Amino acid sequence: MKDIKKIIYEGYQYIDGGVCAAKGFRAGGVYCGIKKTMTPDGNESPLDGVKNDLTVVAADTLCNAAAVYTQNKVKGAPILVMQRHLKATGGKARALVANSKNANTCNADGETKAEAMCNLTAKALGVKPEEVMVMSTGVIGQILPIEPIEQALPNLCKNLKADAEGAHEAALAIMTTDTFPKEIAVEFTLGGKTCHLGGMAKGSGMIHPNMATTLNCITTDAAISVEMLQKALSDVVKVTYNCLSIDGDQSTNDTCLLMASGLAENAEITSESEDYEIFCRALYCVMMNLTRMLAYDGEGATKLLECTVSGADTLQDAIAVAKSVVCSPLLKCAMFGADANWGRVLCAIGYAPAEFDIHKVAVTLASRAGSVEVCKNGAGVAFSEEKAKKILLEDEIQILVTIGDGAVSATAWGCDLTYDYIKINGDYRS
Amino acid sequence: MKDIKKIIYEGYQYIDGGVCAAKGFRAGGVYCGIKKTMTPDGNESPLDGVKNDLTVVAADTLCNAAAVYTQNKVKGAPILVMQRHLKATGGKARALVANSKNANTCNADGETKAEAMCNLTAKALGVKPEEVMVMSTGVIGQILPIEPIEQALPNLCKNLKADAEGAHEAALAIMTTDTFPKEIAVEFTLGGKTCHLGGMAKGSGMIHPNMATTLNCITTDAAISVEMLQKALSDVVKVTYNCLSIDGDQSTNDTCLLMASGLAENAEITSESEDYEIFCRALYCVMMNLTRMLAYDGEGATKLLECTVSGADTLQDAIAVAKSVVCSPLLKCAMFGADANWGRVLCAIGYAPAEFDIHKVAVTLASRAGSVEVCKNGAGVAFSEEKAKKILLEDEIQILVTIGDGAVSATAWGCDLTYDYIKINGDYRS
Repeated sequence: MKDIKKIIYEGYQYIDGGVCAAKGFRAGGVYCGIKKTMTPDGNESPLDGVKNDLTVVAADTLCNAAAVYTQNKVKGAPILVMQRHLKATGGKARALVANSKNANTCNADGETKAEAMCNLTAKALGVKPEEVMVMSTGVIGQILPIEPIEQALPNLCKNLKADAEGAHEAALAIMTTDTFPKEIAVEFTLGGKTCHLGGMAKGSGMIHPNMATTLNCITTDAAISVEMLQKALSDVVKVTYNCLSIDGDQSTNDTCLLMASGLAENAEITSESEDYEIFCRALYCVMMNLTRMLAYDGEGATKLLECTVSGADTLQDAIAVAKSVVCSPLLKCAMFGADANWGRVLCAIGYAPAEFDIHKVAVTLASRAGSVEVCKNGAGVAFSEEKAKKILLEDEIQILVTIGDGAVSATAWGCDLTYDYIKINGDYRS
Repeated sequence: MKDIKKIIYEGYQYIDGGVCAAKGFRAGGVYCGIKKTMTPDGNESPLDGVKNDLTVVAADTLCNAAAVYTQNKVKGAPILVMQRHLKATGGKARALVANSKNANTCNADGETKAEAMCNLTAKALGVKPEEVMVMSTGVIGQILPIEPIEQALPNLCKNLKADAEGAHEAALAIMTTDTFPKEIAVEFTLGGKTCHLGGMAKGSGMIHPNMATTLNCITTDAAISVEMLQKALSDVVKVTYNCLSIDGDQSTNDTCLLMASGLAENAEITSESEDYEIFCRALYCVMMNLTRMLAYDGEGATKLLECTVSGADTLQDAIAVAKSVVCSPLLKCAMFGADANWGRVLCAIGYAPAEFDIHKVAVTLASRAGSVEVCKNGAGVAFSEEKAKKILLEDEIQILVTIGDGAVSATAWGCDLTYDYIKINGDYRS
């Protein structure tokens, strides 16, 4: 994994273990060969045999579960199946099965195949099919071969591990063009009981979320009701994954699943109590840091862009402006070139769907190498191009924008736009 | 100019002459050296001395005028000045002065400089300052040097030509990273009188219009009232420039000016008559073909993408879906790679803010080399990858989308996303 800074809060501690950090979860991933039979021109993908493509996360007990999905009208078949299953169980889940290299989307037999994945997993784990959740990521519109999945699942389910190794295997198996697996976990305390919350996510292109992003699985041993679990997930996703954009393309298969085993034995959270706030902050820690990793590992990216907008009157305005900045292709190119072309920041602020007075706008560029104010009261200020260049040559760039005298701030995450994005997406059917 | 197909309608004939095709207009452009003093690191731009950077279009008589502008909240100073002038004259104009290489935007002295450009032009032409319109394009946030403009204007205004050469010089002078000037003109008949309507536009990045795009000047000798002229421009811009996207970045300086001299001596158009329809169609011809040129010459582009959506219930839905398709970075990359990755078309259709039944969606890819249906009823159909590749290797690609049984259709235009877009926008402050 690339060396990306973790943002940490008091009272929370980062730990290893990803989706297996919480008590009561096992995970694993294998290479089963989904892509090999699918390449249209008969060639093997360069990734074949290298990266895992099938993952299972299983809970020892029936968990409370919550999920958010893409708002794309073209929804992957796995989403439709998973929504039915969660409805049938009243928000309970025992396991997740997920594959990469094929999105199982826009196929006439998509739902049948997604159901088959759940049935096979349920059989191997000895649980009910509707207790199994399902996700797919990869190429849209190619028939998913079920045979390699069928063959691999029994052994995969038998060999799941309740440790960091199992979690890591699982995180590897949902990767598409990601260059490193995204995992993180935190430890915190609820009413004297030690709790854990950890997750994994896959990136890396077609990322411009709306209610959820990419494939995500988060687990916790905290006890929390289905209702509060869904509320926490829906709230935190708004200020994390939904403030991330790699390329403006909103995926058809985005799903984030959150399972709570309750094995930490805290008093179950059933209302918006202080414990709920502590839980939400843990969830924010995990989802915000996964968001940063997703941005940092965007397709072809060399830099993380983090735009924090302050002085807004509403959260909606702050988010709109921050997202507009990190989505601007021209700014993304300038950041790739380490060019302090702040006019492009102003341009992007200007077309954001938000209310503010352009004469109160100020912009500062910052990184580990320092910071430089480039714009004040909506107009340029003199600054050292040399210093700005040094700041922008770093790989984690902060764009700090003030839009007024309001009290609200928000952050959005993105990455630079590079030759490699074109290469990855122009050269073969990724 | 690259060889791009012109779309022609019966009753209209393409002619030479650009902004000078209509009676009563003269134009010209020169290199005055705006950029030379402005490069921040002291180096001369590679374009210095090569491309014209100052243009004037003048009318022999006071014209009825209409304009549309960017909706970006960060508006170039020239826009604010031009809006004041058009208001002061009640929609009349005598001339346009425009420069490239500097947007005169986000500068504390921006409006003063824009007014100075108008005053100098007015003096040289012997007209009133408020009868002069002004546009600037180029880098945002750098002080505009007025001296080279002041020195060049008297001679430029003295040597304006009422022919294709003058129009061409003017079109060259508003170019930024454009690789060819965009000009077009048509001849048509109103009540037995021969009329002309022609225009010029500059591209080529920061193009994602909202009410107008880029710098545009269109002239006509048809007689039409200020009110109907504005209505025609506002209506036609919706289905031409506003359906164009190069990169999703909406410029701060977009302006489209339309001037009517009335010298064709037709009965003045004052209502939504049959003559008005004929005039609008001429305007559509010119603006649609300029839109195609702008898309074809998008920064770094190798291909024009033209997405036509039919079967919609409303124009809004048809436009939303068509724009979503041509804006998708992933599809733009796939088109660069001539990869028939139709799943990305479906994905982009799916996140368009429009109402439709995904099970009624069909997609066909077409070009001079033929056509191939790749998706029907929302799912993939078998097709020849070889044939699709051949189609997509052409440089004008049609993406034909059906979204239902409705009667409405619309077209949006864009281009592929290539290494050169990154190079142009990452390598220097363009």
